[in-house]
Amino acid sequence: MRDAYLVGAAQTDFGSFPDESYRSLFRTAFEAACDSVPAGIDPDDVDEAVVGTLGVGGRQLGLSGPAVTEHVGLDGIPCTRVENACAASGYAVRQAVQAVKSGMADVVLAGGVEIMTDTSSDATKYWLGVSGETEWERLSGTTFAGVYAQMADAHMEKYGTTAEHLSRVAVKNHANGAKNPHAHLGFECSLEDAMNAQVVADPLTLYHCCPTTDGAACAIVASEDVVDEYTDDPIRIAGVGAASDRVGLFQRDTYTSVPASREAAQSAYEMAGVTPEDIDFAEVHDCFAIAELLAYEDLGFCEPGEAGEFVASGATELGGERPVNTSGGLKSKGHPIGATGAGQMVEAYKQLSRTAGDRQVEGATRGLTHNVGGSGGAAVVHVLEKESEVEA
Amino acid sequence: MRDAYLVGAAQTDFGSFPDESYRSLFRTAFEAACDSVPAGIDPDDVDEAVVGTLGVGGRQLGLSGPAVTEHVGLDGIPCTRVENACAASGYAVRQAVQAVKSGMADVVLAGGVEIMTDTSSDATKYWLGVSGETEWERLSGTTFAGVYAQMADAHMEKYGTTAEHLSRVAVKNHANGAKNPHAHLGFECSLEDAMNAQVVADPLTLYHCCPTTDGAACAIVASEDVVDEYTDDPIRIAGVGAASDRVGLFQRDTYTSVPASREAAQSAYEMAGVTPEDIDFAEVHDCFAIAELLAYEDLGFCEPGEAGEFVASGATELGGERPVNTSGGLKSKGHPIGATGAGQMVEAYKQLSRTAGDRQVEGATRGLTHNVGGSGGAAVVHVLEKESEVEA
Repeated sequence: MRDAYLVGAAQTDFGSFPDESYRSLFRTAFEAACDSVPAGIDPDDVDEAVVGTLGVGGRQLGLSGPAVTEHVGLDGIPCTRVENACAASGYAVRQAVQAVKSGMADVVLAGGVEIMTDTSSDATKYWLGVSGETEWERLSGTTFAGVYAQMADAHMEKYGTTAEHLSRVAVKNHANGAKNPHAHLGFECSLEDAMNAQVVADPLTLYHCCPTTDGAACAIVASEDVVDEYTDDPIRIAGVGAASDRVGLFQRDTYTSVPASREAAQSAYEMAGVTPEDIDFAEVHDCFAIAELLAYEDLGFCEPGEAGEFVASGATELGGERPVNTSGGLKSKGHPIGATGAGQMVEAYKQLSRTAGDRQVEGATRGLTHNVGGSGGAAVVHVLEKESEVEA
Repeated sequence: MRDAYLVGAAQTDFGSFPDESYRSLFRTAFEAACDSVPAGIDPDDVDEAVVGTLGVGGRQLGLSGPAVTEHVGLDGIPCTRVENACAASGYAVRQAVQAVKSGMADVVLAGGVEIMTDTSSDATKYWLGVSGETEWERLSGTTFAGVYAQMADAHMEKYGTTAEHLSRVAVKNHANGAKNPHAHLGFECSLEDAMNAQVVADPLTLYHCCPTTDGAACAIVASEDVVDEYTDDPIRIAGVGAASDRVGLFQRDTYTSVPASREAAQSAYEMAGVTPEDIDFAEVHDCFAIAELLAYEDLGFCEPGEAGEFVASGATELGGERPVNTSGGLKSKGHPIGATGAGQMVEAYKQLSRTAGDRQVEGATRGLTHNVGGSGGAAVVHVLEKESEVEA
């Protein structure tokens, strides 16, 4: 089947935007994504659109896909909304790849959008609660922070992971986010800040939790038949993997790993013909600090149980052997649910087109994105590579 | 790209089921779909799932795809929820076709589910309202019946379509639904019943409107590389077309046609290499009686303005030249939003495998399904054919 390429990607600022609508945010991201295509793109070239969003529901329960594409002038094209909680637009990108590989489309827009900050905190809690398992988790009072706290507890108990390890994730991601003009919380935090912040769900402090964020992001995927029209330095989506799991954490065999991430990564590596050692940088799903540590292990960047030491070693910092979340991650860049997966593509695109500025990973040739829905009910992994610099 | 086939499809009874959950309904449909595969299927053969649903949101806002696939034992496979209002699972089938054609999956489950009858009528009205255009239609008090009433008014004014024409749709579809043991309103209605029923939104009476329904439906799509394992009489998904449009009716150029249906049909015919004359039967989106009349015209079964006479001629009745909604359609079979598109596949599968019993269209060789989201913000059309009986 023919190859798919990432020919452009961009995002809005992530933050709190009371004067923006989901449509206006999507439009800003779409226009910037078109502008990011090296040889430019005529929006009329877009054959199809896939839009990831969770909660636009509050405004437009049905047809929120066409509701945003009509606003950016993409009238008439096939448009589908996809949703897998926080992995909505990671799955939108995957569906764009399938559409291209199927031969049914040459250029596909994969975008995502979320407005979160205009809900009351009770509403947000409810809203996020229902993205986990509803019947047995939310209705018994378990929050998302509570679910991830259980995973952190289990990892600390089994492997000796510490609060300092969790805090180092926050320090690293805020240091990166401080270099990202689009970040929601674009400031640095110290280890002390992270360790001593108020407890949200023990052992997770405020700095171990991502913020509630508004934003949109768009990625443009093109087939091998047309990629040359848009760039002379193609970025290939070499591997795609996805997996699902029991929606409720309590129904899984392990609390110290996210099996869906593990399976998705394995599929993506296999399809791309690479191993974790071949990955130069990664954007991983750090909705809570423990999630980034689990990702290191599930993606094969280190052995099970070693993630705490791995982050403490500096390996995943900018300049380390395998920088992770150079964008700031969900922690510092922000986590507008439906936009997060496409937002990860934005950082991968910047890194592989060597336009990441102060955050540039030197010689970045192959990157990975990792987007998780809920506490691991769904996961999707992409491997992207700068075709001119990888061996055929 | 390789061909995709419909190797099985089944649905639950459609109706009001206070003792069922969305998970239990989906399970019933999935197990029946597996049972409908001629040579049988091991559920482990399913590589991927796509689930269409609108309102499971009330129960499980995020991850409702994995929430149902885990319940039927499809642990671990990639699973995505898609939503395009009432066309949710029509798009799920389309995505299954893309997944198969992309080479990333050999067997894909495309299902849909909705529970609607447990909401209060105010909630249902709100809920359905937000599937239309929210900002300018719903917030000004326009209901879905109101939107379709405007279309009916316009068609009557422009073409002389009559209340009797609308009522003939209801009479025909109830006559068909009375032959379908899965139908929600499986009883006949007379022309007088339909004409004289209470007005819902003038000129639409109660019998011109589909009911509020619970139900689930599943379709199983397989690639040409594995289809022989499941059947020796393959039903090919020969054409797929989809299009979007302005979500709000007031933003479109015409009230007497659904442009997205027209474009989707054209794409599907082109891909299948057929014309409307080649279609032996069709399941069309008759959420309101006017919608079926518009479909006749938009799908090319008759000329613009002639739909009223077309239904009055008996052409679309069982035994007519082109039977439409032999299942009973949304009107009589019922319209559990997320399940409707996959439910249309069930009737197409029955007709083409010649297992439709009293509703069998003699010699049915090529059928069409037509699923609309909102008042035409999205539409998806499939053309299916019994491969053994069509010319190569």
